[in-house]
Amino acid sequence: MRAIILVEPQMGENIGAAARAMSNFGIEDLRIVNPRDGWPNSKAYDLAAHGSYVLDNAQIYTSLKSASNDLNFLYATTIQPRDMDKQVLHPKQLQQADASSNIGIIFGRERSGLTNEEISLADAIISIPTSSKNPSLNLAQAVAIASYELSQLISLKPVKKKLGELASKHDIDHFFDTFFANLSKTDFLKNPKIEPTMRINIRNMLARALKSTQDVKTMHGIVKALRKSDD
Amino acid sequence: MRAIILVEPQMGENIGAAARAMSNFGIEDLRIVNPRDGWPNSKAYDLAAHGSYVLDNAQIYTSLKSASNDLNFLYATTIQPRDMDKQVLHPKQLQQADASSNIGIIFGRERSGLTNEEISLADAIISIPTSSKNPSLNLAQAVAIASYELSQLISLKPVKKKLGELASKHDIDHFFDTFFANLSKTDFLKNPKIEPTMRINIRNMLARALKSTQDVKTMHGIVKALRKSDD
Repeated sequence: MRAIILVEPQMGENIGAAARAMSNFGIEDLRIVNPRDGWPNSKAYDLAAHGSYVLDNAQIYTSLKSASNDLNFLYATTIQPRDMDKQVLHPKQLQQADASSNIGIIFGRERSGLTNEEISLADAIISIPTSSKNPSLNLAQAVAIASYELSQLISLKPVKKKLGELASKHDIDHFFDTFFANLSKTDFLKNPKIEPTMRINIRNMLARALKSTQDVKTMHGIVKALRKSDD
Repeated sequence: MRAIILVEPQMGENIGAAARAMSNFGIEDLRIVNPRDGWPNSKAYDLAAHGSYVLDNAQIYTSLKSASNDLNFLYATTIQPRDMDKQVLHPKQLQQADASSNIGIIFGRERSGLTNEEISLADAIISIPTSSKNPSLNLAQAVAIASYELSQLISLKPVKKKLGELASKHDIDHFFDTFFANLSKTDFLKNPKIEPTMRINIRNMLARALKSTQDVKTMHGIVKALRKSDD
């Protein structure tokens, strides 16, 4: 279970944008403690886009304690580490949490954050490092970053893509044989002192380009076309 | 240098919220290509809060190429990996980039993202993994997550690996202009139906080879030599 708990959020827009970001990262359990403008809130729906189902399913509570009853591990978010005897984690350290436990991340009011009493209910503090010039994150953007890090705990589909059939070393060697045979007929490699080094450097450079069989075919075509052309 | 490049953003609110998030993470170089509603945009300022200085200093461009002239390394953000032969990175892999180079992260239009041609200008793709149920991130929230990850880079010591002076995007664009001008005189790109796709594929392939200013110089020399030669 992965829950986001908003304590006394003030702006419906922020609740909606937070729900959208949660949904983007597959975090769907939104709990709201005493929303200032009541519930439901049409401004929240305006900003939620395709994340509106997170708002539909949001639970409303009258205290942080009741909102976190069923969770095993609570993180409080603060901008500056407070003078409290609690472990302060970077958001990336969320990954060290037990992925099987029920985790809640608590966010405070836009203006004043969480009280020390509320923080005391948490097991640890998460502090998103921000610039001293402008330390205060928008609530929904803080939720977005926390949800992004939380989503790494859940196994999402790995980023994957097709590269096309990879060229064999044989194909690549053959290309360079043809290529250098062509280049030898020009004046480009005519300085015998540096020719071996130039060949190596050129090969190193072009080898970065030649990944798939299609790449090799295209390069053969380019060399042939350039050689045949006449100004 | 760490730049965020927004290509044809539609909503001023998103530009402002993006500027706020950038500022939160100490990323202050905002570049905007053809903002739909012109510039400056009062709605952007409404949302920027203490990040408004990022908007004050934002530069406006008429093309992605001109916006990225002075950068060495460009990342394009996409939701789903495209069927393009480019490395696809998780945002956390940004940390593998050379911290000493000038990095730009490109974000596309709210509705339609980046075109394949725009993506072809990038060195790699960054894909923020999202839920298949609601994959589409709000633009400003995507910028927030990228800025958050970028801010982790700044504190890293630059990776010491002398590759030679990195080529600027300007040098690389100039090479491709010359290269395609030469190739156009041959019969290689003569099929108008597939020419645009071929150009993109060829650029994607050769861009992998062109890292340093020396690489670019060498490739200019090779093209010139091959063109001048006669069997």
